[in-house]
Amino acid sequence: MRSRITHQDVEDIAVGGAVLGSGGGGDPYLGKLMAQRAIEQYGPPELIPLREVPDKALIMLPAGIGAPSVIIEKIPRGDEAVGVFRALQKHLGKKAFAVMSAEVGGLNGTIPIQVAARLKIPVVDADCMGRAFPEVQLVIPNLYGVSATPLILADEKGNEIVLSTINNEWAELLSRTMAVKLGGFALMALYPMEGKIAKRATLPGMVSFSHRIGKTLRTARHRGKDILTELLRVTKGTQLFKGKIVNLDRRVEKGWNLGEVIIQGSEDFRGESMRIDFQNENLIARIGEKILVTVPDLITILDQDTAYPITTEGLKYGLRVTVVGMPCHREWRTPEGIALAGPHHFGYDIPYQPLKANRGVRKRHVTSARN
Amino acid sequence: MRSRITHQDVEDIAVGGAVLGSGGGGDPYLGKLMAQRAIEQYGPPELIPLREVPDKALIMLPAGIGAPSVIIEKIPRGDEAVGVFRALQKHLGKKAFAVMSAEVGGLNGTIPIQVAARLKIPVVDADCMGRAFPEVQLVIPNLYGVSATPLILADEKGNEIVLSTINNEWAELLSRTMAVKLGGFALMALYPMEGKIAKRATLPGMVSFSHRIGKTLRTARHRGKDILTELLRVTKGTQLFKGKIVNLDRRVEKGWNLGEVIIQGSEDFRGESMRIDFQNENLIARIGEKILVTVPDLITILDQDTAYPITTEGLKYGLRVTVVGMPCHREWRTPEGIALAGPHHFGYDIPYQPLKANRGVRKRHVTSARN
Repeated sequence: MRSRITHQDVEDIAVGGAVLGSGGGGDPYLGKLMAQRAIEQYGPPELIPLREVPDKALIMLPAGIGAPSVIIEKIPRGDEAVGVFRALQKHLGKKAFAVMSAEVGGLNGTIPIQVAARLKIPVVDADCMGRAFPEVQLVIPNLYGVSATPLILADEKGNEIVLSTINNEWAELLSRTMAVKLGGFALMALYPMEGKIAKRATLPGMVSFSHRIGKTLRTARHRGKDILTELLRVTKGTQLFKGKIVNLDRRVEKGWNLGEVIIQGSEDFRGESMRIDFQNENLIARIGEKILVTVPDLITILDQDTAYPITTEGLKYGLRVTVVGMPCHREWRTPEGIALAGPHHFGYDIPYQPLKANRGVRKRHVTSARN
Repeated sequence: MRSRITHQDVEDIAVGGAVLGSGGGGDPYLGKLMAQRAIEQYGPPELIPLREVPDKALIMLPAGIGAPSVIIEKIPRGDEAVGVFRALQKHLGKKAFAVMSAEVGGLNGTIPIQVAARLKIPVVDADCMGRAFPEVQLVIPNLYGVSATPLILADEKGNEIVLSTINNEWAELLSRTMAVKLGGFALMALYPMEGKIAKRATLPGMVSFSHRIGKTLRTARHRGKDILTELLRVTKGTQLFKGKIVNLDRRVEKGWNLGEVIIQGSEDFRGESMRIDFQNENLIARIGEKILVTVPDLITILDQDTAYPITTEGLKYGLRVTVVGMPCHREWRTPEGIALAGPHHFGYDIPYQPLKANRGVRKRHVTSARN
């Protein structure tokens, strides 16, 4: 069954994407506005199931790269993502059949909608992470040998860079370096792949999943249901902590938002404090020495009042928050997935221990989840 | 009249290029060996006058970018320059009619011979500087509005980057950054231009000039003539100083050799000391507060015994040297040329004062040259 992505759908996908973004992927607000404007101008794009992509069809990913903090001050005109997508089509000498999300989380979950609307081609209901991650090579297709390049990177001024690299780590290194030089944020088109490969190497249903999360939060709010309960139900997530942000060390470095946030516990968590380390995305959540959740599992910080997800650039001293852990996609839980994007990759000498899937809010059931 | 570039010619061009290199352009020895090997394998390439290039013919420049210090430890396999040249041909969808030097100085003066031999196409008897300079945009074609891009950059591992930039300063910034990330040195193909433009925007006769300088030094040595006298005659240069290197501050930074050398005077210069600042190339020569020569005029340091030019990476504490100043090409002496590559560009608040053309060795005639 095919459907069209409407103005309202974009709203839901943006919120759901921010939940799956684990604090990263960029502020969903800007991406949402750009996608909604594109839909108003060019009409709603089709959302097609991954299985309906023809084997020989070309799929490409448009995405932003850089520190999310920067994009807020360096707002794209709106046509850069399409420009760079078209440039990659030209470079390959082939039109893309459809657009796919690199990461369903945050801004990069809505950029594809904008591109699809403008080019009048479908969005594939899939992504390459099932969350957001801060590096080009941290995608499921990389586990299947798919090359990120040819990758095209462009800025709003008109500079354009085509990369062909020997592996995806080089693609990350060079594109990150270029993004920094271009002002801290740039737009890319990358991971061109055939439908046949996409069907094996990407995660189906992720746009719908994102949409379902956003819609669940919205309807729970309208119907006066407990938003957190609904969120944990739909994401199989776990409430990890509640409290107030009492310390925040955040810096834009090497093209990322890097830092850590300290949350002082309240209610059941009074007397404890949680520390979350982040590199665009939240990576490790711990109480004292006890590690509760690590990458590739998801850690999302929600505003306690609204249950809206807060991205790492939106964290503020004094905010009252709820921290939620969610299990990552099973593809990340393979030995290869953990080697690619587990705690070791981010410099932590910590083993990955899968967070169990839960339903509903339980008090302090973190402890049980780790036993 | 056309001629072929022989094994011996490469030797002379390399030495002459090092004289014109003003300390930069990379060690001529390595480039010489690579060019000579290519000639042995593929035969001597033709050297054709600039005026014989057809108006519609495509001319491209192969060149190395990075800190010359690095190339000594990161020796190219030999086919990278050809590889990147071919990649630019493919990108443009057109074969190059001939190869041209970006800078006749140093390594970048012999890389084109290697590429021409391997591709069996001619070398154009011209270059874009009449010396060596440390930045992509510091070429005469830039004064005529020629774009450095599309520019292709590659490393020995197989990574490849295509740049299209809004101006040549961006081409410099991005290619330099990439060269640093690729290990400090990389090969490029750049400034693709038609014969018609090349005839207006490049400097004819520069390969021959370089050859003449090298040959003059060689024959003077064989015939027991005073080498320095011969060198100054052919280059219209001036002896600026003689002495011993007593201090050397040289660092590889941001993809350049940066630093300064202090020379303690001997003979007529006893009691004085000269300081030369460099950024790959020698930029400013001064005695105390008195500035003798600045960019874009040429400053070359010669070994006192052999009168062989010493590149900035070859400078060593204790070496006895002769410092020579040479007038730059008249194209650099236009207001636009001085604005592009004069002292201000390199961060010096010093006006450019043209060095007069001289013949023969005169003692201390520096002083008269500045009055």
